Amino acid sequence: MTAPTRRPGRRPGQSSSRADILAAARVLFGDRGYDKASIRAIAGEAGVDPALVHHFFGTKDELFAAAMEFPIDPATILPLILTGPREEIGERLVRTFLRIWQDPRLSPQFVGIIRSATTSKTGATLLREFISSRLLARVAEALDVPRMNLNAAASQMVGVVMFRYVLELEPLASASEEELVALFAPTIQRYLGA
Amino acid sequence: MTAPTRRPGRRPGQSSSRADILAAARVLFGDRGYDKASIRAIAGEAGVDPALVHHFFGTKDELFAAAMEFPIDPATILPLILTGPREEIGERLVRTFLRIWQDPRLSPQFVGIIRSATTSKTGATLLREFISSRLLARVAEALDVPRMNLNAAASQMVGVVMFRYVLELEPLASASEEELVALFAPTIQRYLGA
Repeated sequence: MTAPTRRPGRRPGQSSSRADILAAARVLFGDRGYDKASIRAIAGEAGVDPALVHHFFGTKDELFAAAMEFPIDPATILPLILTGPREEIGERLVRTFLRIWQDPRLSPQFVGIIRSATTSKTGATLLREFISSRLLARVAEALDVPRMNLNAAASQMVGVVMFRYVLELEPLASASEEELVALFAPTIQRYLGA
Repeated sequence: MTAPTRRPGRRPGQSSSRADILAAARVLFGDRGYDKASIRAIAGEAGVDPALVHHFFGTKDELFAAAMEFPIDPATILPLILTGPREEIGERLVRTFLRIWQDPRLSPQFVGIIRSATTSKTGATLLREFISSRLLARVAEALDVPRMNLNAAASQMVGVVMFRYVLELEPLASASEEELVALFAPTIQRYLGA
């Protein structure tokens, strides 16, 4: 008795399986964090065989990176921040950042990423690599500021996220975009201004 | 066959059992986060019966609060920040904060608190309540600044912690106290200055 061999490359519905796996990965990494979301559980949620997850995405790390990268595509977001007068970069960064996080389809995914990063060395490494290599390195190419200042700007925005979306500390959690711009744009401007 | 009744109030070595339980709770909440650190496991680590944990600390929430509160005693820390010239409060806050976190006995506990807060609603609630009621409310009594500004100052320091101790993002993770004061004290001063 030999199991029938499936050739995933020819599998019908490949692109929808791929999308289903990514969607399932985002749900489970978000709910459980990196360590507790197994490939098997993600495959089960997506209704596919675990082998297919490995076929499309390789390791769990690679799947996490793929799942993590979707919500922020640096190539789409960074021009919104970097294009425009340098003296308004603080305001542009705060507004862009808040609008992305305010999207109810995206914020649970971002919270999941933070959860994975605080509970797993791998999750921390992946997020660090993402922030460092995919975000800050590109901003550094465009702006002539020390890397420490990029770290400082990012740390302020991560702190806002922690209070607004993870701890839900008031009044920050319910503040309007305008209030947050008034408070945080000058801070970012000081870190990133010319 | 009746098990011998122990009256915990008269139990010999009560204070060392209590300290052992707290120490075990800090280790397990730190390693596993709030949800995965069971009372049973904490009791096992401390070498006591689970009933004794409940006797001393009540619920798991109460044990967490007790374990969480030890590393920062607001009554000890806040005067270091609040006493002195108002125009130097940013520098005092950054230095005090960094010195507490640099203590190798304390920083793993704080990381454990953040881990619990990101992975558990209860952990998030406890940390939010702690920050809000035990820290910011007291600072608000001493300084006449809007609560939003206190949130902003705390968010910047939480962001520093996330990058320095959780994600270990460079160069922030290896920066000296002086570099961090130069970068962050003016930010805190802007939020908390008169």
